[in-house]
Amino acid sequence: MIRILGIDPGSQRTGIGVIDVAGDGRCTFVHCEALKLLDAADFPSRLGLLCEGLERVLDDWQPQQVAIETVFMAKSATSALKLGHARGAALATVVRRRLAISEYAPRVIKQSLVGGGAADKAQVQHMVRLLLKLPDARLQADAADALAVALTHAHMSATVMRTGVAINQLRRRGT
Amino acid sequence: MIRILGIDPGSQRTGIGVIDVAGDGRCTFVHCEALKLLDAADFPSRLGLLCEGLERVLDDWQPQQVAIETVFMAKSATSALKLGHARGAALATVVRRRLAISEYAPRVIKQSLVGGGAADKAQVQHMVRLLLKLPDARLQADAADALAVALTHAHMSATVMRTGVAINQLRRRGT
Repeated sequence: MIRILGIDPGSQRTGIGVIDVAGDGRCTFVHCEALKLLDAADFPSRLGLLCEGLERVLDDWQPQQVAIETVFMAKSATSALKLGHARGAALATVVRRRLAISEYAPRVIKQSLVGGGAADKAQVQHMVRLLLKLPDARLQADAADALAVALTHAHMSATVMRTGVAINQLRRRGT
Repeated sequence: MIRILGIDPGSQRTGIGVIDVAGDGRCTFVHCEALKLLDAADFPSRLGLLCEGLERVLDDWQPQQVAIETVFMAKSATSALKLGHARGAALATVVRRRLAISEYAPRVIKQSLVGGGAADKAQVQHMVRLLLKLPDARLQADAADALAVALTHAHMSATVMRTGVAINQLRRRGT
């Protein structure tokens, strides 16, 4: 059993999703939430709230691996800068706990969950609910994205493991 | 006496400058260094090194106020994103210590130190050396920029204080 934390960083809201992955690759829902950062007095305080929230989640749920979205090319330098601040604060918090971080492009996440890199948000959310057997209630968008990147990491790790096993089997057979 | 930490954040090197400001506004050099981040295994680890270095500086020198450059509009979204990561990690580290952060635009720093918003780096470094009575030896560029933002904060605070005093004097005179 491996516990994975998925993070969807943002400077207004940061999505958090925690799942468990069994040895056979089956994923179960553990926790999700959105850290709301807009109440902070100023922009630096938002980053402080992000780190505090993330450390609480790391303490409460003790994930062993962390997955985070890479940034698709932001439309403007201004939005890239803001997103960069949030992502930097999140990465620094995780790295300081000596946890391994895997990064996945949005296209890879969509491909992994829906089977197409051009899938829309609703399709991704639908698959997140389906895979984690979540009730059909409204799933907060940022939390859903965080669960999506955690699920992608689970799928990718399983694929890597399977491929590794297959290669080892081939090697053992001397082929 | 107030101790000010200036930070010039960057994802390759982050400049650190610490000065003391006396009641009469006179500034004295305390410490400067550049945190070298390129040795890290990957980009998230660089941010980890940045935070660790910054926390060491905060522990060792116990500044009471922190000043940091705002970001001039980066040429590309990619460089804005990288700089944003470094700045976000730095801001989050400082905010979590409950220290006040002041932000200054590069133009304001140049104006404050050299008297012109279009001054070049060499002029700013020259003034940093002059104001802090540093020997004419090579001053690491990132450290110099960090001292420059700390000096700007000292000047600005002094100006605000003087203006406040003047306004109070006028008020007391009933004008």
